[in-house]
Amino acid sequence: MQPSGKFHLGNYFGALDNWIKLQHEYECIFSIVDLHALTSSYEDTSKIPENIQNMALDWLSAGLDPEKNIIFVQSHVKEHAELHLLLSMITPLAWLERVPTYKDKLQQLGLAGKEINTYGFLGYPELMTADIILYKADTVPVGEDQIPHLELAREITRRFNNLYGPIFPEPQARLSKAPTLPGIDGRKMSKSYGNEISFSATPDEIRARVQMMVTDPQRVKKTDPGHPEVCTVYAFHKIFNPTEVDDIGANCRAGTIGCVACKKRLADRIVEFLADVHVRRQALEKNPGRINEILTDGAERARKLAAATMQEVKQAMHLV
Amino acid sequence: MQPSGKFHLGNYFGALDNWIKLQHEYECIFSIVDLHALTSSYEDTSKIPENIQNMALDWLSAGLDPEKNIIFVQSHVKEHAELHLLLSMITPLAWLERVPTYKDKLQQLGLAGKEINTYGFLGYPELMTADIILYKADTVPVGEDQIPHLELAREITRRFNNLYGPIFPEPQARLSKAPTLPGIDGRKMSKSYGNEISFSATPDEIRARVQMMVTDPQRVKKTDPGHPEVCTVYAFHKIFNPTEVDDIGANCRAGTIGCVACKKRLADRIVEFLADVHVRRQALEKNPGRINEILTDGAERARKLAAATMQEVKQAMHLV
Ligand code: SF4
Ligand code: SF4
Repeated sequence: MQPSGKFHLGNYFGALDNWIKLQHEYECIFSIVDLHALTSSYEDTSKIPENIQNMALDWLSAGLDPEKNIIFVQSHVKEHAELHLLLSMITPLAWLERVPTYKDKLQQLGLAGKEINTYGFLGYPELMTADIILYKADTVPVGEDQIPHLELAREITRRFNNLYGPIFPEPQARLSKAPTLPGIDGRKMSKSYGNEISFSATPDEIRARVQMMVTDPQRVKKTDPGHPEVCTVYAFHKIFNPTEVDDIGANCRAGTIGCVACKKRLADRIVEFLADVHVRRQALEKNPGRINEILTDGAERARKLAAATMQEVKQAMHLV
Repeated sequence: MQPSGKFHLGNYFGALDNWIKLQHEYECIFSIVDLHALTSSYEDTSKIPENIQNMALDWLSAGLDPEKNIIFVQSHVKEHAELHLLLSMITPLAWLERVPTYKDKLQQLGLAGKEINTYGFLGYPELMTADIILYKADTVPVGEDQIPHLELAREITRRFNNLYGPIFPEPQARLSKAPTLPGIDGRKMSKSYGNEISFSATPDEIRARVQMMVTDPQRVKKTDPGHPEVCTVYAFHKIFNPTEVDDIGANCRAGTIGCVACKKRLADRIVEFLADVHVRRQALEKNPGRINEILTDGAERARKLAAATMQEVKQAMHLV
């Protein structure tokens, strides 16, 4: 994941929620890919260190276990660059140019005034391929939008194996069906809309944000029958309150629950949901060296695996 | 220099002859760039180790001093790949696409049946830039054909310095005017023509090759006036026998020297020129571990400089 700003709840459900589950099923490697962040923003890199710290804090407080998993920063392991360079030699330019997201994102960033048509931006999926196969990953949790990148990674992997021998497993996509959480105004949750609930919000902040949520606009009095399907609060109940959601829907439709009470019940659930997160966050914040310790340890463990792979790769390519 | 086959005398005068002189004027770093070799030939890499050994043997026997200079293999120093990746993020794609040699070489290799239109091939000058500035080189000995690459390296360097701070000196080209040596048949010396004199040729081999050289075809008898300007032997005298060349030319024109004698004098000069080379070569061949020792030591010394640069680079880019 690229180190961007602090998580909001929408980001959490975008991927991390899934990772928290995966760590019990797989040996996982989670990387804060700071080098990837340069592909779309190289001009001002001053926020990278802060973003890395915040991302690690979000991950760890969400419950990613740094003992069980390897958690590290991409640029701390030189082998990513090394494998990226070797893969670049065998990857037809056309394979990268035809990635559907390439031209789209180029245009999108261009419209936003970003001059991003760089060699590195074109090589984004090449670097992602290196990130994956460097650890001989067999499975990669991806969202729908990453499918073309993973398809390319598999193609590059096959080409490598054909040329130099069967060193890498072909990584399989594990598609996560992330529930999308609306913002408090009902639009997509996004910091640029100012409609987010921060993943590090305190209980008071959570309650305040829930209070501001838009509900069914046709409901004026508590006894008016409501339409939960158009209500943001209800969308949140589906995710944070699955056992009560049907009951709440029925009461809303019947006009037997008021929006204030309904919001209070939701706020309680979100506060509850984030309770452990807050405990872990506070512990980490009290111990400011801990995150760097974890990232240093993670980089060491990643480096060991990466170095072993690179030795095989170089032997296969006659570069030793 | 890319590790290709064994040197012939034409290769020697193409660059190495100049390097031998430069080592007395500069602190030099000479790299066998095996990763670059992949940009134009990645399908069969089995010859790389042998080519590296031969190149090191040619360099050392030519008189490059492994104590005074740093002599190493590019792929032994991961920082080349690391800097290459970082530079890729700031290099507009168009800068690489417009390098004049890019489209030419692509076409040329395409005609030779090589499928070489890879991401890495496009990135060739990017990697070359990393090779140069990783050591904060101020001067790069180049041939005419490398000028556009060096111009691009300077452009990328300026861009980096503008974005992140003045870390790198802008490398200056030092153009070497290499004399071109014809092959024994008068065409360009090239292994593919079979007209070369090997840089590792023994005295007997040298004499045999000189014997086969084409001379002025209009000369039948020794007393016929000759035309040295069309004679391959004479072209060699210019390089290997500068003190006698005018005298030989005059005698040839006057018909007072025979081609057999003229060739013998040339062969003597070439044998003499390569005498020290042979002594050094034989010493190295008797000590088969020595080359690897030298390359290992060179890589260690290069790595120290490279690591120091990369620390500065990463600090400047906020990647530490
Ligand atoms: S009662 Fe609850 S679900 Fe119904 S409109 Fe009010 S907040 Fe929304
Ligand atoms: S005498 Fe020497 S220079 Fe003249 S034609 Fe013969 S080989 Fe060439």
